[in-house]
Parts: sequence; structure tokens; C-alpha cells
Amino acid sequence: MKKLFLTPILIFAAAMLCAQESKNIQLKTPQKNKGAKIMQALSERKSTRVFSEKEPDLQTLSNLLWAANGINRPDGKRTAPSAMNRQEVEVYACLKSGAYFYNPQKNLLEYVSDADCLLRDAPVTLYLTARAEAGNNWAYIDTGIVSQNISLFASAFGLATVPQGSMPREKIIKDLKLTDKQLLILNHPVGYPAEQNK
Amino acid sequence: MKKLFLTPILIFAAAMLCAQESKNIQLKTPQKNKGAKIMQALSERKSTRVFSEKEPDLQTLSNLLWAANGINRPDGKRTAPSAMNRQEVEVYACLKSGAYFYNPQKNLLEYVSDADCLLRDAPVTLYLTARAEAGNNWAYIDTGIVSQNISLFASAFGLATVPQGSMPREKIIKDLKLTDKQLLILNHPVGYPAEQNK
Repeated sequence: MKKLFLTPILIFAAAMLCAQESKNIQLKTPQKNKGAKIMQALSERKSTRVFSEKEPDLQTLSNLLWAANGINRPDGKRTAPSAMNRQEVEVYACLKSGAYFYNPQKNLLEYVSDADCLLRDAPVTLYLTARAEAGNNWAYIDTGIVSQNISLFASAFGLATVPQGSMPREKIIKDLKLTDKQLLILNHPVGYPAEQNK
Repeated sequence: MKKLFLTPILIFAAAMLCAQESKNIQLKTPQKNKGAKIMQALSERKSTRVFSEKEPDLQTLSNLLWAANGINRPDGKRTAPSAMNRQEVEVYACLKSGAYFYNPQKNLLEYVSDADCLLRDAPVTLYLTARAEAGNNWAYIDTGIVSQNISLFASAFGLATVPQGSMPREKIIKDLKLTDKQLLILNHPVGYPAEQNK
């Protein structure tokens, strides 16, 4: 009897899991020979706060997330160094379709929620979190490192972005389903520059 | 009489000032079309801790310092963003000839002392300091941003580096003549990779 009772619950749970998984976004292989030269990217690096409506395509989004903190070596090490190789900084992406966790091992955006967590009307907003205690200086240094990967990638690909500390924190923590072991440190709206910025 | 007494002191002071100034190093104009593409630089970014004896030439050193936190716009803004544009992160360079302060406005290495403050037998060691209170999270974020400019520049130019928090702090604070308003946050030995790293 117990078995019979459990079966529909299990079927329902499995169906829910499939539904969540079907909302994941498989990213494309990053294009490692693209973008402006480093000195050009540094030369054109600037903070931009107004964005056009144009959405970056999946390849650009894939390149962006890998650039931010992707795996660049067979041993799992990253584009961003971290203190003691703790790899404590994680990247969340908000798109028009909802909030996602960037899984660098699977090159996958894992669906988190349907929340609208875009900032400054940008088509993409990245959130940088760190698995660290508040006041751990390294968490902030390592987050700055990932942030500059994003800024230089944007500059090299004609995208616009700005690193920001201010955001509706309580809402974002809910939207991203962060735990109390994750510090929400920075965000980066990302898109193409609005005409007025050009 | 007073005038006559002061004259030799003034001459001595002026001579000392000239001697200091003659130890400054005028940097070259950064080459803004050089280096690997951004995705290639991200792909090859890694921490390297053993260096060859070969010294970067003056043009490479000039490019490196500008990349780290140089001025990239007519309004004085930098390759590295900073919170509220405070530009609180400063770069010191230790070379075989001594310790210098990087002055981005003058594109100049200002002589600080004859101290030997090279780490890990690298021919260059950069120190990142911030004019901020201890515990100011932004100082650490902004320093991480400058640090990644250095790491990606190195990767794009075939140089080796590693961001480090550990160092003989008391000695370095003396060598660089830091005041108690400057936080000594990170260092980056920089050079060419030793054969064993290749």
C-alpha cells in the first residue's frame, strides 16, 4: 500500500526535476581566438550604464561566462586566479528568461528561478558571489579579479558593462536562491551600448 | 647674514632634489595595438612562481604599468575601474635599481629608495596599495581589478606572474616608504618564465 501511495509522488518529483532540467541552457564552446588584442581592450575599457535592447547571442554569452571564470586548463583551474585556488567566486546570470547559475564544469547555465533580476534594463546581468565569510579580504580581491575579466571581455567584444556594488540585495538573494554561506558582492549589467553612448 | 647662511643649504637641497629626480625613469608611450587577443590571454592565464633572469625591456615595463592602472581617456580615467572613481589603488615597481612609484599622469617611475624589494628572484615586482581604511571592501575589489590587468597583460605578452598576499610586510612598507594611510594589499613578481615552467 505504501508503495502504491508513493508512486505518484515519485512520478511528480521526477517530472518536476525534468522540467527544471529542460530550463537549463547548454552553453557553446568558448571561441579562444576571438576579440580585440589585450592592449586595445585595456585602451577601450570604460564603465557604461545605458544599454540597447539588443541581446547578446548564445555564443557571445558563452564566451562571456567562460571569460569571467571558466576553466582554462585540464586540471580545472580558471581564467581568474583565486587565493589558495579556493575558486570561491561564482557567477549567476540573469536573462530575460530568468535566473541561472553558471556551472563551469558542465559549461551550463543551470536554471534557478523565473525571477526578473535584470538591472539598468540591460539584457543580461551577471552577479558575482563568493563562498566566504563576510570581511574575508580575499573574497573581495578574487571577486575584483573576475569582475575585470568581464570588463575586459566586454571592451574587447564591443559590449558595454559596469561593475556595481549597489543593488536590491534582499530581492536578488531571493531571486538567486543564495544561502547564508554565499556573499553577494558585485553585479555587472551587460549588453550593447545604447546609441547615446557611442 | 641670514641669507648668506641659507644659501648653501638651499643649494644642497636643490642638488639633492636633482639627484632624486635623475633617478626617476621616464616610461615609454604604451603600445595600444600589441599583445595576444583577449580570449587567447584568458586561455593562457595562469600563476607562475619561477622566473628566468631575463629583464623586461623599458617598452615592456611601460606597457605593463599602463595596463595595470594607466590613464586610458582624456578625462584621466583608468584601465581599471574603481568605486566612485576614487582611483585609490596605486602601483609601486621594484626593479634591480630600487623601488619606484608609478605616476600615471606623468607616465613616470618616481624613485623612492634603493631598497632590494624583489620577490621570488623575479626581475620586477609590482606592489599594489590602496589609499583606504583597512576593512574597506572596495579597496580589495579595486585591487583585484588592477591585479587581473597585470595577470592578463602578462599572459598576452609571454610574461609570467602570480598575485600574492604574502610578503615581508614590515620591510616592504619601509622600502616603499608607505604611510599609515596606504594599505599594502598584493604583490606581483613579474618576469619571463623559467625554462622549467615551459
